[in-house]
Amino acid sequence: MVSTTSAPDQSSRPPLFRRSTTRLSDGRELIYFDDSEPFLSGEKTRCAEDLRALPAVEPSGELRWDARVGEWVALAAHRMARTHQPSDDDNPLAPTRPGHRTEIPADDYDVVVFENRFPSFAGPPADEAEPGGAMVDGEPLWPRRRAAGRCEVLCFSPDPTGALATVGTTRMRTVIEAWADRTRVLGELDGVEQVFCFENRGAEIGVTLSHPHGQIYAYPFLPPDTVAVLAQLRRHRDATGGNLLDDLLAAELRSGRRVVSEGEHWVAYVPAAARWPVEVEIAPRRPVPDLCALTEAERAELAGFYPELLRRLDRYFTDADGAPMPLPYVSAWHQAPARIGRDEFRLRLRLFSVRRSADKIKYLAGSESAMGVWINDTIPEAIADRLRELAA
Amino acid sequence: MVSTTSAPDQSSRPPLFRRSTTRLSDGRELIYFDDSEPFLSGEKTRCAEDLRALPAVEPSGELRWDARVGEWVALAAHRMARTHQPSDDDNPLAPTRPGHRTEIPADDYDVVVFENRFPSFAGPPADEAEPGGAMVDGEPLWPRRRAAGRCEVLCFSPDPTGALATVGTTRMRTVIEAWADRTRVLGELDGVEQVFCFENRGAEIGVTLSHPHGQIYAYPFLPPDTVAVLAQLRRHRDATGGNLLDDLLAAELRSGRRVVSEGEHWVAYVPAAARWPVEVEIAPRRPVPDLCALTEAERAELAGFYPELLRRLDRYFTDADGAPMPLPYVSAWHQAPARIGRDEFRLRLRLFSVRRSADKIKYLAGSESAMGVWINDTIPEAIADRLRELAA
Repeated sequence: MVSTTSAPDQSSRPPLFRRSTTRLSDGRELIYFDDSEPFLSGEKTRCAEDLRALPAVEPSGELRWDARVGEWVALAAHRMARTHQPSDDDNPLAPTRPGHRTEIPADDYDVVVFENRFPSFAGPPADEAEPGGAMVDGEPLWPRRRAAGRCEVLCFSPDPTGALATVGTTRMRTVIEAWADRTRVLGELDGVEQVFCFENRGAEIGVTLSHPHGQIYAYPFLPPDTVAVLAQLRRHRDATGGNLLDDLLAAELRSGRRVVSEGEHWVAYVPAAARWPVEVEIAPRRPVPDLCALTEAERAELAGFYPELLRRLDRYFTDADGAPMPLPYVSAWHQAPARIGRDEFRLRLRLFSVRRSADKIKYLAGSESAMGVWINDTIPEAIADRLRELAA
Repeated sequence: MVSTTSAPDQSSRPPLFRRSTTRLSDGRELIYFDDSEPFLSGEKTRCAEDLRALPAVEPSGELRWDARVGEWVALAAHRMARTHQPSDDDNPLAPTRPGHRTEIPADDYDVVVFENRFPSFAGPPADEAEPGGAMVDGEPLWPRRRAAGRCEVLCFSPDPTGALATVGTTRMRTVIEAWADRTRVLGELDGVEQVFCFENRGAEIGVTLSHPHGQIYAYPFLPPDTVAVLAQLRRHRDATGGNLLDDLLAAELRSGRRVVSEGEHWVAYVPAAARWPVEVEIAPRRPVPDLCALTEAERAELAGFYPELLRRLDRYFTDADGAPMPLPYVSAWHQAPARIGRDEFRLRLRLFSVRRSADKIKYLAGSESAMGVWINDTIPEAIADRLRELAA
C-alpha cells in the first residue's frame, strides 16, 4: 500500500526528505514528505491505513465559458457541503489519534500532501462529450466541459496551532521540496495547463480550517492572470526586445525604494503599483520559470528568507494593547504554465492581505469586483517602510 | 447660488423632475433631482446653504501603471480617513436638521447627487508633469499620473432606513433620470473614458454608510472589465460578423432556462456562466449603449421592473426563523465607454452577491484574487429557479 522513495538528485549527499505514497479509503492519493528520523533514513515507514469507510469523492463539477470576458468559470455545487470551521476535535488535518480518525492515517507526520475531498478540479479531461453535451443548452456561445485537473491540500505541520512562519528552516525546506515535487508531477498530468501553489491564511479571507496548510491547484486551462502576464510579456518584447518580468525586477533593484530584504539569491520588495493594503513580492535574482528549476542553494536560502518575511507580516498590525495581530493573507506562487511560455515566465511569490488597519478590512466592492479597477488606500512606499522597520 | 432647470426633452408634457444645482461650502457640486411638489413645478426651490466650514477637498491621489498585467491602479491614501459606519446622529447623507448639519444642506430632498468628499478620482487631467514626475522613480516601466475624474454619491431617499427596492416607481424613475443625467454630463468631462453607476449594499461588502445610496465613478481610463468586453466583441465580430452581447442575450431568450422575468422592454436572467453565488443581469431588449439612450417607455418600465427584482433578492435567503435577510450586493451598470465602442457596447445591469447561504459568505481567496479563476459553489440554473419561485 505504501511506496517510498528518497529525494531525487540527492545521490551525492544525505537525502533531505523521503517521499512515501499511499491511498485513502476512497482512493485519493496521500504523500508523506518526511524530514525526520526514523522515517528519513527509511528505517521506519508511515504505514498506517485509512480505516474510515469514506464514500467515493463526488464528481468535480463543470467549467463554463464566460464569453463576455473570455474566461472559464468553475461550477462546483458539490463544495457547498465542505467542512466549515470544525471544532478542534474534528480537525481533519491533524494526525489520526485513537478515536479521532482524520484525513491523515498516520499518528504523526512532518509534511503531507493529499487530494482534496471537495475538489474544484479533478480527474483527466473527458474524452467523450459531457452528459449534458459540450455546450450549455446546445448554444455554441457557451462551451462547457468537465472540471478536470487536481486539487491538493499540503499540511505544513502536524501542530494545529502552528504557522508556516515558525515551522523552522528544515521543515520549510521540506515544504519547498513538496511544492517543487507537486509542480513537476501535476504539470505532467494530461490536460493540466497551470500548477498553482498557494496559501490562504485567516478567517478574514474565508479559510475554513485553521490548521496550517496550503493548497495546490492544477488547472486544466490558463488562468486569466497568467494570460494577462503572457500578453504583457509579448507586448514588452515586441516593443523593447526585453523580458518584462526581468526588467521590472531590475527596476525595483535599481530604485531600491521599496526593497524590503535582500539575500544572495532572493529579493523581497513591494511592487511599484501594489494594489492591496499590504502586498509584497519575493523573486529569485536568477531568471527561473518555476519552483522545480530552483537550485539547491536557492531552495536552502528561501527556507529562511520567506519565513523571516512572514514573521514581519505577523507584526505588521498591532491591536489596541500593542499585541501583534497575525495577518490574514493570500500567498501565491506565480509559476510558468506547464506547457507554454516557459522560456519567458519568471517565478514570483506574491503575498497580499485584505487587512488595511487593525480594525478594518479592504472589501472588493463595485470598482474592484465589477470593473476590475483596484483602489488602494495606501501607497507602496508606506508598505515598504513598515516592513523595513519590522526587520529582525 | 442655486440654478434650476426642468427636465430636458419634456416640453410636450409635464416634467418628471426638476434639477437644481448648488455648491457645498468647500466648492463641491450638489444637484437635487426633485419629483414632488412644490419643488417639481418650481414654485419653491431648495435654497438652503451649506453653513459648515469645510476644509478644501484633498487631492485625489495618483494612478500607477501595473505593467505586469497592463492595468492602472489608483492610490488614494487620503481615503484611509473616510467616514466609517457613523452613528445615526452623524449620518452625513440625511437631510440637515437643526443641530445636525450633513452633506445635504436642505431639510428634505427627493433624490440628490453630490461630489464625494473622499474621492478616488477627481479633477481634470493634469496638463503638466506630476510633482514627482511622470514616472515612479524615473522608470519608464512605471508611468504615473494624477487620478483625474470624478466620484459622486447618489442618495436614493432621505429616509436612512429605506432601500432602492421600496422607494416606489416615481422615486425610482427619478433615480434613473439622475443616472442618465450623470452619465451624459460626466461622459463629456475632459479626460473621462468611462462612467460607472453602481450601488454597493450591505456591511458584508464593506459599505461604510447604511443610508440608501449609490455611487457614480467617472474613470480617466478604460476599466479592465470594459477592455475585456471590447476585446471579446472584436473577436466575436471577426469570427461571426455578429455582436457578442446581442448574441448572448438572444441565446438566453432562446433557451429561456435562466430567464427570471420579462417585460415589454426589459429581460432579467441569470447568465449561463454566472460566477457569484447569486448573480443576475437586466438587459433592454433593444440594443442600447448606455442609460442616456433609453426611451421614455424603457425608463418607465425599468422603474418598476428593477425594484421588483430587488425585492425578490431581499427574500432570497432567510434566517433560522424564516425571516428574509436583506441581500448584500454590488449592482453595476455596465455602459458603453464615453468615447469609443459606442456602436458595439450594450447596456447591462449586473447584480451579484457574496452571500452563499444564510450564514456563509463567498470570499475571494487565492484562486479568484491571485489567479482570476472564479469557483462558484452553485450553478446558474439553481439561482434562476430560486429567483423564479420568489416571483410576486
